[in-house]
Amino acid sequence: MIVKISPRGSLDQLSQLEVDRLKQNAESELYQLYRSCSLAVLASGLQSDNAESLFNQYGDFNINVLRRERGIKIELTQPPQAAFVDGHIIAGIQEHLFSVLRDIVYLDDRYHNLKHINLTNANHLTNVVFDILRNARCMPMLDPNIVVCWGGHSINPIEYQYTREVGYQLGLRKLDICTGCGPGAMEGPMKGAAIGHAKQRVNNARYIGLTEPSIIAAEPPNQIVNELVILPDIEKRLEAFVRLGHGFIIFPGGAGTAEELLYLLGILLNKQNKGIPFPLILTGPKESEDYFLRIDEFIAATLGAEAQNKYQIIIDDPAKVARIQKEAMETIKVFRKDNGDSYQYQWSLKIEPEFQLPFEPTHEVMSHLDLHNHVNKAVLAANLRKAFSGIVAGNVKMDTIKKIEQQGPFELKGDPKLMALMDQLLNAFVSQQRMKLPGSTYVPCYKIIK
Amino acid sequence: MIVKISPRGSLDQLSQLEVDRLKQNAESELYQLYRSCSLAVLASGLQSDNAESLFNQYGDFNINVLRRERGIKIELTQPPQAAFVDGHIIAGIQEHLFSVLRDIVYLDDRYHNLKHINLTNANHLTNVVFDILRNARCMPMLDPNIVVCWGGHSINPIEYQYTREVGYQLGLRKLDICTGCGPGAMEGPMKGAAIGHAKQRVNNARYIGLTEPSIIAAEPPNQIVNELVILPDIEKRLEAFVRLGHGFIIFPGGAGTAEELLYLLGILLNKQNKGIPFPLILTGPKESEDYFLRIDEFIAATLGAEAQNKYQIIIDDPAKVARIQKEAMETIKVFRKDNGDSYQYQWSLKIEPEFQLPFEPTHEVMSHLDLHNHVNKAVLAANLRKAFSGIVAGNVKMDTIKKIEQQGPFELKGDPKLMALMDQLLNAFVSQQRMKLPGSTYVPCYKIIK
Amino acid sequence: MIVKISPRGSLDQLSQLEVDRLKQNAESELYQLYRSCSLAVLASGLQSDNAESLFNQYGDFNINVLRRERGIKIELTQPPQAAFVDGHIIAGIQEHLFSVLRDIVYLDDRYHNLKHINLTNANHLTNVVFDILRNARCMPMLDPNIVVCWGGHSINPIEYQYTREVGYQLGLRKLDICTGCGPGAMEGPMKGAAIGHAKQRVNNARYIGLTEPSIIAAEPPNQIVNELVILPDIEKRLEAFVRLGHGFIIFPGGAGTAEELLYLLGILLNKQNKGIPFPLILTGPKESEDYFLRIDEFIAATLGAEAQNKYQIIIDDPAKVARIQKEAMETIKVFRKDNGDSYQYQWSLKIEPEFQLPFEPTHEVMSHLDLHNHVNKAVLAANLRKAFSGIVAGNVKMDTIKKIEQQGPFELKGDPKLMALMDQLLNAFVSQQRMKLPGSTYVPCYKIIK
Amino acid sequence: MIVKISPRGSLDQLSQLEVDRLKQNAESELYQLYRSCSLAVLASGLQSDNAESLFNQYGDFNINVLRRERGIKIELTQPPQAAFVDGHIIAGIQEHLFSVLRDIVYLDDRYHNLKHINLTNANHLTNVVFDILRNARCMPMLDPNIVVCWGGHSINPIEYQYTREVGYQLGLRKLDICTGCGPGAMEGPMKGAAIGHAKQRVNNARYIGLTEPSIIAAEPPNQIVNELVILPDIEKRLEAFVRLGHGFIIFPGGAGTAEELLYLLGILLNKQNKGIPFPLILTGPKESEDYFLRIDEFIAATLGAEAQNKYQIIIDDPAKVARIQKEAMETIKVFRKDNGDSYQYQWSLKIEPEFQLPFEPTHEVMSHLDLHNHVNKAVLAANLRKAFSGIVAGNVKMDTIKKIEQQGPFELKGDPKLMALMDQLLNAFVSQQRMKLPGSTYVPCYKIIK
Repeated sequence: MIVKISPRGSLDQLSQLEVDRLKQNAESELYQLYRSCSLAVLASGLQSDNAESLFNQYGDFNINVLRRERGIKIELTQPPQAAFVDGHIIAGIQEHLFSVLRDIVYLDDRYHNLKHINLTNANHLTNVVFDILRNARCMPMLDPNIVVCWGGHSINPIEYQYTREVGYQLGLRKLDICTGCGPGAMEGPMKGAAIGHAKQRVNNARYIGLTEPSIIAAEPPNQIVNELVILPDIEKRLEAFVRLGHGFIIFPGGAGTAEELLYLLGILLNKQNKGIPFPLILTGPKESEDYFLRIDEFIAATLGAEAQNKYQIIIDDPAKVARIQKEAMETIKVFRKDNGDSYQYQWSLKIEPEFQLPFEPTHEVMSHLDLHNHVNKAVLAANLRKAFSGIVAGNVKMDTIKKIEQQGPFELKGDPKLMALMDQLLNAFVSQQRMKLPGSTYVPCYKIIK
Repeated sequence: MIVKISPRGSLDQLSQLEVDRLKQNAESELYQLYRSCSLAVLASGLQSDNAESLFNQYGDFNINVLRRERGIKIELTQPPQAAFVDGHIIAGIQEHLFSVLRDIVYLDDRYHNLKHINLTNANHLTNVVFDILRNARCMPMLDPNIVVCWGGHSINPIEYQYTREVGYQLGLRKLDICTGCGPGAMEGPMKGAAIGHAKQRVNNARYIGLTEPSIIAAEPPNQIVNELVILPDIEKRLEAFVRLGHGFIIFPGGAGTAEELLYLLGILLNKQNKGIPFPLILTGPKESEDYFLRIDEFIAATLGAEAQNKYQIIIDDPAKVARIQKEAMETIKVFRKDNGDSYQYQWSLKIEPEFQLPFEPTHEVMSHLDLHNHVNKAVLAANLRKAFSGIVAGNVKMDTIKKIEQQGPFELKGDPKLMALMDQLLNAFVSQQRMKLPGSTYVPCYKIIK
Repeated sequence: MIVKISPRGSLDQLSQLEVDRLKQNAESELYQLYRSCSLAVLASGLQSDNAESLFNQYGDFNINVLRRERGIKIELTQPPQAAFVDGHIIAGIQEHLFSVLRDIVYLDDRYHNLKHINLTNANHLTNVVFDILRNARCMPMLDPNIVVCWGGHSINPIEYQYTREVGYQLGLRKLDICTGCGPGAMEGPMKGAAIGHAKQRVNNARYIGLTEPSIIAAEPPNQIVNELVILPDIEKRLEAFVRLGHGFIIFPGGAGTAEELLYLLGILLNKQNKGIPFPLILTGPKESEDYFLRIDEFIAATLGAEAQNKYQIIIDDPAKVARIQKEAMETIKVFRKDNGDSYQYQWSLKIEPEFQLPFEPTHEVMSHLDLHNHVNKAVLAANLRKAFSGIVAGNVKMDTIKKIEQQGPFELKGDPKLMALMDQLLNAFVSQQRMKLPGSTYVPCYKIIK
Repeated sequence: MIVKISPRGSLDQLSQLEVDRLKQNAESELYQLYRSCSLAVLASGLQSDNAESLFNQYGDFNINVLRRERGIKIELTQPPQAAFVDGHIIAGIQEHLFSVLRDIVYLDDRYHNLKHINLTNANHLTNVVFDILRNARCMPMLDPNIVVCWGGHSINPIEYQYTREVGYQLGLRKLDICTGCGPGAMEGPMKGAAIGHAKQRVNNARYIGLTEPSIIAAEPPNQIVNELVILPDIEKRLEAFVRLGHGFIIFPGGAGTAEELLYLLGILLNKQNKGIPFPLILTGPKESEDYFLRIDEFIAATLGAEAQNKYQIIIDDPAKVARIQKEAMETIKVFRKDNGDSYQYQWSLKIEPEFQLPFEPTHEVMSHLDLHNHVNKAVLAANLRKAFSGIVAGNVKMDTIKKIEQQGPFELKGDPKLMALMDQLLNAFVSQQRMKLPGSTYVPCYKIIK
């Protein structure tokens, strides 16, 4: 089956040169990246978190950009049928296809034109993330209003329903939603918010999804997302979240959620960020109370009370969660105005290079992570973040999975007490089926060396 | 608590005379009608189908129209708190308040200015319904696209989820939804469609709710409804449904749903309506299959095979239901164009006076309904419709409930076989808790005299 | 030639009854009114102020309302070619055709349904004017912003250019324009404002034209008018101007302009209107200075200094005129807010019945006008207004013109000094060619009896 | 006076790096370019075609980009007062200020990041022009509809009125206008079209202005322009015109207009462009007939009948001009569709490098232009184009004017007959005051060496 898709949303005109560079070509890295991100977007209706099986299933899939009299068209060969309703592509997916195209073209252009951009320079990295978001038109002149929702892609039905409830309450308060744009805790809040927004007649609600090429196939964007951005890597994606978002909610999740929490705490523990309003709420249904107690204990035992003060845990009260976020928006507005910082992009937040520079988890690197207590808790948070990041990669990223298959699980070493805590937490994630979608048996990609 | 509400949507300017006529006044029938409809709208978040208890609970509630520099404002005294989020009225409810105002003002104006309108004349009644809908701006110049969803306000969670699924599939096909605008089967399809529309980026989806003063308190409009119209009585509301709607879906329900089905069949059995495309689907989840079998048997036994041919029953296949409706829209479009009939209002559908003129169920009238077999099945359908209509009134309309309390249940007489069938069906509704919301015990308002 | 015109703007759905009432019918007064107003609108590109010659020229013209699948269509037989560009009707004219239809249908409905409306009651008349304007959707919830521009339809090129300049300056200040919607001083300000609005990126500027059936053919609406309303008669049209408008500018003109000025002064001299902010500016180019001096002298000699204080004369300074109007908007806003009056319709302005009730100029009535000095200057203004109103009718209204042809000119009697002043002023209008378009010789329709 | 201007239109967020690069700095070339283009935009209301006097008059003017909570603001020090109405900047100018900022930032970024772009490569140049236009969002997905109007900035009132009439007729046909965006023949069509568009209710009409840094001060954009693009140089600007535009109209003008005509003819004479629909009309009022006869004679004598066939001359018939352009749009649409070329950018038009590469007129270069007859008329057209281009530069571009002041007029040599023709044509331009605005005496910047 071959179908031609007309532009929607982001981008509708490409130059001859740009089209040439995207030509279907087995050896072109750019084309392969473009193809796999597009396939992930088309597969968004499918229930799977296994990128490889997706790529195997759609081995015949091809994509081609054509120039036509009204601008470009995208030609799909053998696309997943779930992307279509009665033969017509779903508008949300159509939009996402062109978001992928937009970001791939832009990143390619940028990453081959770097005279001004020094990519080891923290300041420049921050500008690159800004550039990408602006090019994606993610920065309308609005007041602070974006709530970032984090949490697992594999959560149980009660938790899922809870994320919808929270989303509904956020929607009733006309707040916009930003997530990692996959299923589970990344989808529930958007679905709930859609109903809340409908009741409040919010026609221009924003459902922002931030993803990156190595995660998009495992967590394909749900179709409610109406602003999809593909950042180049996990660190730039995380930076996009914290500079773009205004409020933050963490639902139950697995290693990825732990990584995200540690990332935030690492930044918030930075002395230079003291006093910045940053509403961070950990929340779940009554049934998940225990989950958050364990997380909280882990944070207490590793990063201490100061870190605990950076968040609040709210159990089973969606309206309260939403109300706190809503109230915080006014505080953030005043603070940014007083400090001359942008409502759209929090330039003034200090992010250390260890949180910005891409972390490439290899067996070598993972086994040398410094997992000991530190005086500077921000440094410990950074290292713990990397440990969890490596585990996420081992779980879902295709190339890391291959490394694990060849060389065995990552080995993590460090302070015995700390390692015991980590072991406990990870075991809990495994037993609660937070590491992979139910149905599959989880084989750990890591080994805690005691 | 006193709050002032600014206009939204329908109407924002009233003349001095109009405001004067709506002045708060215990003895003004118009004011009482206005007050009770407004209270119903404000109570839309509450779980109840008991109008009297609602009115008792909010005895202190008052409403007042004020003229202000930017047009009118509505002043509410002691309104239900469920209409507010953090002190702000929900936009959907705000819109509904002004829809109520618009229709009350218009009907008052119309019904006291009737030189041209002869209200016993079928043709004129059809023009009145048209006038009301046009005044409510329910007739944008669009292609046929409205699916009317009927079904009970009290349905079980599996059925409710099914109505959402159907709504979702309708939304994915960009179809608009019209219902009686209460909870249950009147809400589910809208919630589902909201998600489908979001995925298809349909920003101007229509969620039409048609109600009338005697039913609105028992079935308050859900807040997704973005076009609310208050018709003067049940017959004009039914006429509005069939002339405005293009496709029709009936979910499980109780006496009201039976009334609606009989109303449709009575009209479709009219020879003059032969050949009119009128997609009518009865559908529910696997678990409700039995329910539809009983209905189908009842129709077969009373109205016969010709009536059965007017609908199809689809079990547990939301996508199929939606696909059939979508395909029918094209047929309807061609048919209306060929026959010079409006896309917005099906003038050419013949509706006999017995379906148009208000039916006032008293003990006298109910006991004299001619419930015997007829050669003309349309006549039998009309009479059966009235029987069920009376039962609905006895269940939910305040003044009819009072009559029942004073004079005992309605008595229904007729052909013994037919009465037995009816008894069976009604008993099934009772035992399936379709007559009232679960929690209350249903006391029948009728007695079948055998 | 027969063409079918699709709806644009106001009204797109009519009921069967409404279409029936508008059926082409030589004997139906309603149809004749509808036909002649529509013809006037279609003739808006032609240079003429002679209604009769227009009707003679297009004797074959017919109009017919058809119901179609997408709503109504208007069928035109032998329409004026100036309404079309390359065979397509100009959108502005298309819109006006449907405005005519909207108002004719509404007025017919109203004027045959008058139970609540007592048309000799001043308060009710004010509500009728409100109803008509609201039905025409002329009352969006905006801040005070409308400048009414009055002046002759027959002005010289220098004056015309000046009205454009003033319009341009008003447009630069984002003010909306309301006029009697014919050529000359009714067109110039709109054309000028269109350029000013374009430079200020005002996309939703309002160009309001208020007309009435007996004047529309002599002063057909120019096509920039994007809100056209047909009021039933001259008095309701004048009331619409003063209640809808916020600021007022009078350019040079003839008897009609004098009538309008006297109407305003009569109202403003009413003690009950004391203190109401009402910016009234008489303005023209250097070359018209003398014109305004004469008007001013006439007012001084008849109504006195208090009346003179109600306006200011500004010569040759468009920016100043616009600046004063702009500044007044803020004052008006505060005043209305403080006094609880509407921004859209100045309910609180007191208009005496003598200014509201239709004045029908016959030879009898005209010869008995009380044109003597009065203690109450408002009464004198009212009578003078009627004298000029009769002269306008004698100049341009078909039925009055016929009366004059049959019975000779109107005779005006009164205080000799006053009559001399009036004679002088009228002679000046004649010699300056302000009574009729240049090219025709003006034969006075009145005689001053000294 | 210091004022801060909020964003409008194009661009509202800049990165820290971008703001840093634009910092006020006497030695930064980028800042100077930015400052002078901004000043030109602010001066658009002033009557002048003398850039130097403008810069002298506003020596104190400064501009500064600030980052604020809602995005950037532009801070102006001592701006021209003509840009303001009652202290508020005119929206059109405000928009233009941000268009300048957008293009300057983008060009700077591009021109320092050129790895992929080889600027002597014709194909790459075409892509650069595309990039700039796309970045300016000048490529909405519309059908062919853009009429390019060329002609002098200094034309007489009759000609000016004629350009308005043509614009009006184009506007009545809903065509969009693209010009060089200065006064005279670049402004008249837009003003006329604004009225035509208003009558046709075209709310989203496009008034495209293409300019470049060296011309913008002499021909500041008029404020009706709602899509302003600053191209880097005259050749890219010309390429933008011919690839973006669909129809072409040339009004009377001076050397610049001659340059433009020769540019077009040079391209159209290219064999590879044979058959491309390219409606080119030379038009003016009756009074300008002689002007076009001379041009036509010059073309006949130099480029011959084939060149003459590329255009048609229409005298005093605005409606015909507009009708031909309108009809051509359909032809162009079909042609592009059949040939797979874009409606928004005519990729397939072949433009030789001699028309693309920047021509820098120095005394040396000008004196060596090969102004002899050629077998290849396209080459002769190219050389003649350069001769006129140099004269334009000598008339209005500041640095060229300085060269002329220092070294005397350019010397042009060539075939005697051809030089005589050229001399004649240029003398006619001078005597008709087409070289400079009336009031100044024109001192020729060239000498024809016979």
